[in-house]
Formats: sequence, C-alpha cells, structure tokens
Amino acid sequence: MSEVLILSQETIGRVLTMSDAIRGVEEAYCQKSTGAGSLFPLVCHVFEPERADLDIKSGHLAKSGIYGLKLVSWFGDNEAKGLPALFGTTLLFDDSTGAPVALLNAGAVTGMRTGAAGAVGAKYLARKESRRMLMVGAGAQAPYQIAAMLLAMPGIDAVELCSPRSPSRAADRLRAIRQAVEGLLGGGRTAPYTIAAAEDLAEAVGRSDVIVTATPSHQPLIRREWVRPGTHFSCVGADMAGKQELDGAILSNARIFVDDLAQAISVGECELAIRQGFLAPEEIVGEIGALIDGALPGRADEEEITVFDSSGIALQDLVVSKVAVDRAKERGLGITAEL
Amino acid sequence: MSEVLILSQETIGRVLTMSDAIRGVEEAYCQKSTGAGSLFPLVCHVFEPERADLDIKSGHLAKSGIYGLKLVSWFGDNEAKGLPALFGTTLLFDDSTGAPVALLNAGAVTGMRTGAAGAVGAKYLARKESRRMLMVGAGAQAPYQIAAMLLAMPGIDAVELCSPRSPSRAADRLRAIRQAVEGLLGGGRTAPYTIAAAEDLAEAVGRSDVIVTATPSHQPLIRREWVRPGTHFSCVGADMAGKQELDGAILSNARIFVDDLAQAISVGECELAIRQGFLAPEEIVGEIGALIDGALPGRADEEEITVFDSSGIALQDLVVSKVAVDRAKERGLGITAEL
Repeated sequence: MSEVLILSQETIGRVLTMSDAIRGVEEAYCQKSTGAGSLFPLVCHVFEPERADLDIKSGHLAKSGIYGLKLVSWFGDNEAKGLPALFGTTLLFDDSTGAPVALLNAGAVTGMRTGAAGAVGAKYLARKESRRMLMVGAGAQAPYQIAAMLLAMPGIDAVELCSPRSPSRAADRLRAIRQAVEGLLGGGRTAPYTIAAAEDLAEAVGRSDVIVTATPSHQPLIRREWVRPGTHFSCVGADMAGKQELDGAILSNARIFVDDLAQAISVGECELAIRQGFLAPEEIVGEIGALIDGALPGRADEEEITVFDSSGIALQDLVVSKVAVDRAKERGLGITAEL
Repeated sequence: MSEVLILSQETIGRVLTMSDAIRGVEEAYCQKSTGAGSLFPLVCHVFEPERADLDIKSGHLAKSGIYGLKLVSWFGDNEAKGLPALFGTTLLFDDSTGAPVALLNAGAVTGMRTGAAGAVGAKYLARKESRRMLMVGAGAQAPYQIAAMLLAMPGIDAVELCSPRSPSRAADRLRAIRQAVEGLLGGGRTAPYTIAAAEDLAEAVGRSDVIVTATPSHQPLIRREWVRPGTHFSCVGADMAGKQELDGAILSNARIFVDDLAQAISVGECELAIRQGFLAPEEIVGEIGALIDGALPGRADEEEITVFDSSGIALQDLVVSKVAVDRAKERGLGITAEL
C-alpha cells in the first residue's frame, strides 16, 4: 500500500519552470559524474521497423533519493488517427524503501529537460560575452532550447531561427515560437531579446556565438568553413545511430564534452564523426558533469570551438520529474491515488 | 493526453478472481508459444548486495493488444520500518497507439498469477485421477497455490501443507491459510476438500499425486526415493540462480515442461540439475504453452514423473493485469486520471 501522485502534462506545465529544469539537469549531470547517479541497461523493442517502437530508460539518483524509468513509444501511424506519435510515461520510486512515488506524463518534462541540456552546455562552454544564438531547427524543441538559453545565458540578446531543409519554415513558425518562448520564460527573463528568422544557414552560422542544433538530420547540416573561431555548439538532435548535424571536420579540432560517453559514441553527434575518422573516442574531453563539478577544465581560450553532445539520459528526466512532483505537492496539485 | 486507470491492491483483490488468473496465465503461455507474446530484455539492478535490488520485466502480448512492464523492488530493511520488503508496480499500454492504459499495484496480481501457474502445470501434466495435493512451503504463496489447484483440478480433495525447515510452522499457519484459500475460492469451488498440516515431508511426498513447491530453498528438499510413480511437480520457488527444491535425480528421468526455456535453464528449478549433470537442456520437452496449445504431447503414461518448472514471466502479469483492468472498468472501480 502506498500513495502515488499522478501528474498530467497540463499540471506539469503549470508547476515546472524552465529554471527548475536547468538546475535539475545540472544536478543530474553532476550526480552522474560523481557516481551518485547511475543508468540501468536500456530496453529497446521494435514492434514493426519504421512504424512502431519503444524504449525504456531507467536509472538511480542517490543524492535525490529516487530511482525510476521513462517509457517512450513511437507509433508512426498515430498522426493519421489524430493522436501524438510519441507517448512518454515516467514512474518514480523512493530509493530508501522502493515504494512508488509518482506517475507522470513524460512529455512536458522531456521538452524542458532537453531544452535545459542545450543551454547547460552553452553555459559551461560558450564564451562569456556570447550575444548571438542560432537555433537550427524550427520544430517542437526550438522554443524550449531558446527559452532555456535566454535564462542560462543572460548576455544572449539576439536569437536567429533557421530551418535548414525548408528555409521559409522558420519565418512561418516565428510567431508561434516567440509566443511559446515567452510562455516558457514565464517572466524569468527581464533583459530584452529578439528572435528573428534566418534564411541562409551559412551566413547565420558565421555571425553566431552559440549554435544549438535540434533537427532529425542524418547528414551534416553545418560545414566547417562557415564556423568562426570561438563558436560553441550544443547538439541535441542526434540521439540514435545514423543521425548527424555537424560536419565531422568541426568535431576534429573542437573541445568536446558529452552527457554520457558510451551513448555519445554509439548514438550521439560523435558517432558518425568517429566512424568517419574525424574524431577518436579518446579525444572527447569527458562528461559535462565533471566540467560542472570542476573536475575537468572547460574552454581553453576565446578561439576554441566547443561542442556539447547531448544524446539525452534518463537521469535528466528523473531529476526534473522529481522537481515537478515537489512543486505540485507544494501547491496541492495532481491526483493522489492509493496503490 | 490520455486517461489512465489506477488500480490499488484492494481494488484488484475485489475484482480479480482466481479463475480469471488461471485463464489469463494459460493465455499468456499460449501467446508465448505461438509468438504472439514476446519478452523484452530483463533489467536488474542491485543497490546493495543482500539488502536492496530491483528488476524490470517487460513484454508484449499482441493477441491481448497490450504491452507493459512490472517493476519489483526488494528492500530488506523495510520490515524493520513496518513496510513490505517487496513493492511491485505494473504499467500497461495499448499496443495499437502506445498510449498508457493503467497503473496497477502488482502485488495482488503477482500472488494470483503465481498460484495459477502451479495449477496450470498440474492441470496439463498431472494424472487426471489425482486426488492428493502436497503444498511444500507455508509462506505467502501457499493459499494462492492451493486455491488455484482446487479450481483447476476439481478431483483434488485432500491438501496437505508442509513447511520443510520448521515442521511446526504448517500447523501454526493452517487456520490462516484455510481462511485465505476460502477467500480466494470466493465460492468458485462447490466440491468439499480438506487442508491438513503434515509434519513429515518424506511421508507426505510418498502419498501425494500433485506436489507444489514454493519455498526460498537453495538446497534440494525432496529426495528421489520418496517420490511414487506418476507424481506431478509444479516448482514455483526457484526464480533466481542458485535456488533449488527438488533432488536433481527427480528431474533426470521426468517429463519436464517450463514456462520459458532460457529462464528455466538460467534461474529456474532446471538450473542446478543441469549444472550438476542430472539433466541436459535438450531433455526439457518444451514450453508449457506448446502443451496447452496441443503442439507438444504431455504425460505419456500413469507411471511417468512430470515436472512444470515455473520461473515466472512478465506475460503472466500483463495478461492478468489486463483482466483486472477490464473487470474494474465493467464495475466502474479504480481511479481514472488524465495523464
């Protein structure tokens, strides 16, 4: 017998702030780096290739007192049925007793924690005086990435949005993305900023300090010769084998941090660069938790290209879900059910 | 956005009958044997050896239209805190969309499905005229095993209960077990039956037609020379490496079926018999689903010793959980939460 808190997407959207997510993701990275956080083996199942699959990511965060899992399914035929293709569900447990604590719709948390990841990479690796952000990809992740960046990097005041495969899409989506960013900022940013659409990716890359890539691309989008010295990249799009957003040559002389070494090499932005001979696994400096913790040094100078390869780990979801649970409890929201 | 049904242990106890569980477990075994049921990889994590661990078992039942997982944790220190050592939580999903369907306390289902497994083994392998059942082990599983057997094998009318390590325990527990069995039968058995305590295991074995073992033993409890021809064993105790309840010599000339071949060999009753040279893996006849389905022949004659090695598979939990969900919906029970 135990009491479980049920949090819907709507409730999580009301209680969880992007600043919470940023702090949570930093905490998850640090616990992973000190060994307080551990990942359990990944479960993947393909119901039908290219049509339906799922994975179960799970892990333990000793300092947060929780363990848990996130099951995410993708059913390609759902959109024709008027349903989302992705469903994500998170279960949290108390690590002192094993009792279940909460069931959450994982969607809202996934958006926030992924946005926070890109921003945390920039916060610890980008040049301090960075002012110009380029958001590559105008999909569902764009507002989360932009809002998180505007909170984590107060000096950034000019954002450009570029949709590499269909350049007009960024302009079409601009209004909706601006509104979504405002909503996610929730008054947490007072300094002014602009968000504009950029048609020419090469030119936009050349004038940016911080570039976040969040596309489903399987080919390099950004070429080495477009990139100016000192640029920081946070790559969040590549999260399965075969995905790639940067020209491997960019990685070959960059200072690279990752969220999880094994995963970056097998499914992250580093995967193809390594396979194509641009990068050796031992050239990756380390996991970002060790940088946040001060155990590894970050950017060496103002000229260096830095890269954060975020393939996404369950610990991010679990920490941020725990924050959502605490916030909901403070406000008496969610449904409590006897189990 | 989706609606999830939350079922507590208490609600499941009200809606789920042992007959439901028996039908569900047969269905799970058959789907496994035909390929409609599949198991996903097992996740195990040890927080601290001998003190706390967990596993996540998951799988898909195409004919039932569901997939899902059961997370079971064991925290040895819980009893000192007045909490159960085991917590089990089941999540079910719709296999046509991936949407979450239900969250259940797995405890009530685990008891029922494990009891049903022992009885299903006997139903398909024991001699039809079997009358005497011996229950080895007087723990939490005993009433589930006895009640399921009394439903699945109407000819059984005399049950003996034996606690091999502390013979007086069976007598001490008899009253509570009788009551629990009555509760589980819920009027589903009209023919009379008796349940008595047996002090001498060897003698009780020698007069039994059907023997169910459900103990945490790591050494053989039942010797070959005690067993009379034609006896059937359902072994449900061994579910992790190193556990054993039968003398390996019993398995060496028995007709053996298992719930899952790979699991029986690695963690079931067959494990040590194979390691000790009493049995070769290829001597196992097959999985019980193929016997239920008619694809494999069962007992050859009245003299043969038969064994069903049930190590427990997630598909049993998932099918029976689905039945509980259907029953609860019919009666408008459980808590429906927007996710």
